[in-house]
Amino acid sequence: MAAASTPEREAFYKKIDGENMTALWTVMSDLITPEPKSACRPHLWQFAAIRDYMVEAGRLITAKEAERRVLILENPGLRGQSKITTSLYAGIQMVIPGDVAPAHRHSQSALRFVLEGKGAFTTVDGERTLMQPGDFIITPSMTWHDHGNETSEPMFWLDGLDIPLVQFLDASFAEGSQEDQQKVARPPGDSFARYGHNLLPVDAKRSSRTSPIFNYPYAYTREALENARRSAQWDACHGLKLKFSNPETGDFAMPTIGTFIQLLPKGFEAARYRSTDATVFTVVEGKGRSRIGDTTFEWGPRDLFVVPSWQWVSHEADEDAVLFSFSDRPVQEKLDLFREDRGNA
Amino acid sequence: MAAASTPEREAFYKKIDGENMTALWTVMSDLITPEPKSACRPHLWQFAAIRDYMVEAGRLITAKEAERRVLILENPGLRGQSKITTSLYAGIQMVIPGDVAPAHRHSQSALRFVLEGKGAFTTVDGERTLMQPGDFIITPSMTWHDHGNETSEPMFWLDGLDIPLVQFLDASFAEGSQEDQQKVARPPGDSFARYGHNLLPVDAKRSSRTSPIFNYPYAYTREALENARRSAQWDACHGLKLKFSNPETGDFAMPTIGTFIQLLPKGFEAARYRSTDATVFTVVEGKGRSRIGDTTFEWGPRDLFVVPSWQWVSHEADEDAVLFSFSDRPVQEKLDLFREDRGNA
Amino acid sequence: MAAASTPEREAFYKKIDGENMTALWTVMSDLITPEPKSACRPHLWQFAAIRDYMVEAGRLITAKEAERRVLILENPGLRGQSKITTSLYAGIQMVIPGDVAPAHRHSQSALRFVLEGKGAFTTVDGERTLMQPGDFIITPSMTWHDHGNETSEPMFWLDGLDIPLVQFLDASFAEGSQEDQQKVARPPGDSFARYGHNLLPVDAKRSSRTSPIFNYPYAYTREALENARRSAQWDACHGLKLKFSNPETGDFAMPTIGTFIQLLPKGFEAARYRSTDATVFTVVEGKGRSRIGDTTFEWGPRDLFVVPSWQWVSHEADEDAVLFSFSDRPVQEKLDLFREDRGNA
Amino acid sequence: MAAASTPEREAFYKKIDGENMTALWTVMSDLITPEPKSACRPHLWQFAAIRDYMVEAGRLITAKEAERRVLILENPGLRGQSKITTSLYAGIQMVIPGDVAPAHRHSQSALRFVLEGKGAFTTVDGERTLMQPGDFIITPSMTWHDHGNETSEPMFWLDGLDIPLVQFLDASFAEGSQEDQQKVARPPGDSFARYGHNLLPVDAKRSSRTSPIFNYPYAYTREALENARRSAQWDACHGLKLKFSNPETGDFAMPTIGTFIQLLPKGFEAARYRSTDATVFTVVEGKGRSRIGDTTFEWGPRDLFVVPSWQWVSHEADEDAVLFSFSDRPVQEKLDLFREDRGNA
Repeated sequence: MAAASTPEREAFYKKIDGENMTALWTVMSDLITPEPKSACRPHLWQFAAIRDYMVEAGRLITAKEAERRVLILENPGLRGQSKITTSLYAGIQMVIPGDVAPAHRHSQSALRFVLEGKGAFTTVDGERTLMQPGDFIITPSMTWHDHGNETSEPMFWLDGLDIPLVQFLDASFAEGSQEDQQKVARPPGDSFARYGHNLLPVDAKRSSRTSPIFNYPYAYTREALENARRSAQWDACHGLKLKFSNPETGDFAMPTIGTFIQLLPKGFEAARYRSTDATVFTVVEGKGRSRIGDTTFEWGPRDLFVVPSWQWVSHEADEDAVLFSFSDRPVQEKLDLFREDRGNA
Repeated sequence: MAAASTPEREAFYKKIDGENMTALWTVMSDLITPEPKSACRPHLWQFAAIRDYMVEAGRLITAKEAERRVLILENPGLRGQSKITTSLYAGIQMVIPGDVAPAHRHSQSALRFVLEGKGAFTTVDGERTLMQPGDFIITPSMTWHDHGNETSEPMFWLDGLDIPLVQFLDASFAEGSQEDQQKVARPPGDSFARYGHNLLPVDAKRSSRTSPIFNYPYAYTREALENARRSAQWDACHGLKLKFSNPETGDFAMPTIGTFIQLLPKGFEAARYRSTDATVFTVVEGKGRSRIGDTTFEWGPRDLFVVPSWQWVSHEADEDAVLFSFSDRPVQEKLDLFREDRGNA
Repeated sequence: MAAASTPEREAFYKKIDGENMTALWTVMSDLITPEPKSACRPHLWQFAAIRDYMVEAGRLITAKEAERRVLILENPGLRGQSKITTSLYAGIQMVIPGDVAPAHRHSQSALRFVLEGKGAFTTVDGERTLMQPGDFIITPSMTWHDHGNETSEPMFWLDGLDIPLVQFLDASFAEGSQEDQQKVARPPGDSFARYGHNLLPVDAKRSSRTSPIFNYPYAYTREALENARRSAQWDACHGLKLKFSNPETGDFAMPTIGTFIQLLPKGFEAARYRSTDATVFTVVEGKGRSRIGDTTFEWGPRDLFVVPSWQWVSHEADEDAVLFSFSDRPVQEKLDLFREDRGNA
Repeated sequence: MAAASTPEREAFYKKIDGENMTALWTVMSDLITPEPKSACRPHLWQFAAIRDYMVEAGRLITAKEAERRVLILENPGLRGQSKITTSLYAGIQMVIPGDVAPAHRHSQSALRFVLEGKGAFTTVDGERTLMQPGDFIITPSMTWHDHGNETSEPMFWLDGLDIPLVQFLDASFAEGSQEDQQKVARPPGDSFARYGHNLLPVDAKRSSRTSPIFNYPYAYTREALENARRSAQWDACHGLKLKFSNPETGDFAMPTIGTFIQLLPKGFEAARYRSTDATVFTVVEGKGRSRIGDTTFEWGPRDLFVVPSWQWVSHEADEDAVLFSFSDRPVQEKLDLFREDRGNA
């Protein structure tokens, strides 16, 4: 397919190289591929192992010195780039009793999904919340946030950020606060009280595309799944899958990262599925396995795994399982690039 | 301002009248007024009186014969037109034990706000719900709905419809069912389970501008108000006012009717307010009074009152009060016609 | 269908009448009809006759005294209401050499479609334009406008306004200017130069739902039709039908009134069509006839006719014909009330 | 700022490296920067030099063998990546008389801006157009396109694509056709006739976020600038700057690439400006210079230059100048990441 090499051509390539030019026909097949050809690879991290390393990290560095005590999950195909997929970052954060992660803000949007612990706090934009396992928390772009732990147990959560995307777009802004912690300016639960009940302030003006709810409590999420299972409209590929939504728009909760919760009932054997949004999963409840491309990964609570773009995936649940996941699907949808394939079904 | 009358002019007016024409300058000042000049008048209906009439109506006609056993609240300035404001209809419906209101559907959108009773049912689009006081229920345009009462108490609710608007636009379609009641096709609570928790089905396609939630339970509504009061961001005119929203869009719950809930704390004395959307109020909890134009109306639970377009209104609460209200504000906003005025503030 | 009358019931109706209440079951069949039942009737006005009356009016009253020298086209089924359909107003305006129609503004949106004349001017929001036959001109809600005629010929145009709609919604605001004419603040063609070429100012903020283009010149409109006819994607009901659009949104050019241009090629015999938006037509070029309900109306240049909601209409053209039309379709679409039916096709 | 290195820490880093993990605190300052820190560098390519190389390329390879005979402009800070900015690709394409660039389609969106020549053709989605200098042409995602030259002169144009973005999102799909050229299915000018005149087909359904106009002719663009200059609302940074828009939405003409045209009048000295969207410029008319960061670049017709994210730029025009430019601004706006800074103004 590629144009044949000749001495004249090679000489030409060399000449234009000095002019900051390259001949398209020598690279076109790498730039525009018939299907996505990603360096991203399927992988699973067991939480038990991560947890041990985190505890060790807890002895090596304080939250304050680290600013954020996080171990990045690096995709084996994308080492050295702090990426779990080509466009997204994931890490595991630990906050131990007494920790203070000082206030900062940045243009990167962050999600937090709580894996273990009980009642450590986070403050976002002047509102504090106590976090519980399964809670999905948002720190919107350029919003001050800090957190700490006044309980007697460590807390662990999954951080998902659009760091590679913001880097790619050359749009990173950040600043730290003089104060370790923001002043608490609003009562706990304020954003949920105002926006979480299918009611909106009558004169609210939207200022951002990010959901005004900053904590989606697992109690509600789980109830939604449990109630919905009664209607038994199961999807062959996904079981019962919902997306977290922004009540002001009905769009995804964050403009750059789509977040999902899904229920796979005991014994469910999903049909295979593939899509262009490489997806990071963590297991909230249950045990099972996922076949990704040619490899099968066994998973249990709090394990994490990644499905690359356009690789076939199918899930099986040995017991009722709940999976949280996130991807860049909102970006792809907004740009008319999202594509999915539900196998031969 | 109007053009003077002369014999030639009068003769001309007569002549063109036969050609289905009229001279604009003879009517212009009535057509385009400096401010809204509505025939709609302020009025309050006491629920106790309505209730007595309804009980009497219950002896005079069955729900089945009446199709819907409803007393229309007619604005004193718009008698004979079945209107509570120029664009909206309101009525009080009673369903007594054993009643069956047969299934029908129509292009008019309907809201129901429950005033008294416990557990009568309604079925909308194959999903049944049990209704409680304070619940806000939607029957969207062209959706089958029927209701009945298998309890031992009568139920009363407020019906709000866009009948005058649909009539004005010549867009009425309706049909009755062969069956008195629809088949129940989905479990109770299904729509709320799928759409009420800030989560949306991952592959949902919107087919209408009406909220997919059909019952907004008062328990949640009240909790939203109670939590929000802690943040004490009181509006001088409205107290704490929220609009019911469509989780798929963040817009009003219905395309033609805006619905609102507001909390006036004990002792609250509102600043005056006016807007172009004539508004129907009903009292959910508490006692107080509203000054509308030059008249003051005292109100208590379940009373109903109407504020015409562009008339000044101000509320006072003797005890914590909750008001439900509805208007054509979504229509006016979509058409760039909504205007409000917050007094001298 | 209606509930039978009994003495007890009649007594009851009388009693509640005194309380500003009515029994729904006595009026329901008039309120919610199986299909639209409009008082609006099909009708055609011949321009030649209107023109004579207008000339007579020109002798009877000045533009300044009349404020606007207009003869309203009143639907024969809606006499005395200044309506051509239930929701819209239409009139014919004449501006003779030397006339000055003083500056005013109002919440009603107005369209103007030029029927005869050459180069009278209108000024909208500080920008003046010279008008030619076939030009479609907008005066948006609350925008100052005035016009005059510095040529030697009279100009005639069709005025279409949402007067009944704004009246129905009780949202009329208006004011006159101290000055007869606004100061011209922008060069002629400014809005078209900025917005009419599929280019938009890079930092434009939208402030209204009305198109920023205020004159859609017929030269462009006709060219669009003529070019499009080559692709021969004819619609069986409409010939080739386009809607004037707002370049900032792709929506209709005005939020309350939809405006359309359509080409019926010589010999075209349209399939029948009905829709819920009663529509006012005027003939720009050509001759033909339209069957509306059971009546056939013959038409030629500048004639005007109205098709009520949900009445079947079919057009025939004896020679290439161009029709301009307007209706409340944007309102109906925004409110999920629009419905159309393309016959048995 | 970074955490101090200790032997224990280094040992820990090594250990977790084997588990596909990295400590965030060792890399955080590179990931989340206070301001954009791009490898992208300012640069200017003179068209005269490119043209000579292209002519040489025309002797070395046929359009058919190359599939597309294009020299990629590679940013000096991003060599080997086929990028002109971090997210965008640019190249210069030459089509000589007799050339055939065979039909293909891909998920990457492409723009073409014609630099030199007269009347070579391109066919997009079954519609052929003849291209002239200054024309802006779109080949939307997954749309078949081919081109050729039946004139006696070579044609040169600028290609802009979102190749790096689609690569980053792992969403590349492409296919070639069996046939060299598509069948022409629609008359020339069809898309412009239907969509380019502020009119839209009455029943059009949008199927993509890309403009349905595929050729924005320079004649119209230039006229828009020339007319608009009379209103003299000059922007201190941009002169008179317009964006090409999608008439169906008012949004940018393409979902992933924003395209702009701007007029700098003779003698204009712009105020400095910076924004997060690195931008590629080409000169359509006129001469002048742009200061980017600390470097000044002199430019004349058809020269090309790139301004990186968040670098100050200011332009000066020695004679009336017209600049075409493109960037990823639509992406940044949709994701709430766009930021601009107009200096001290």
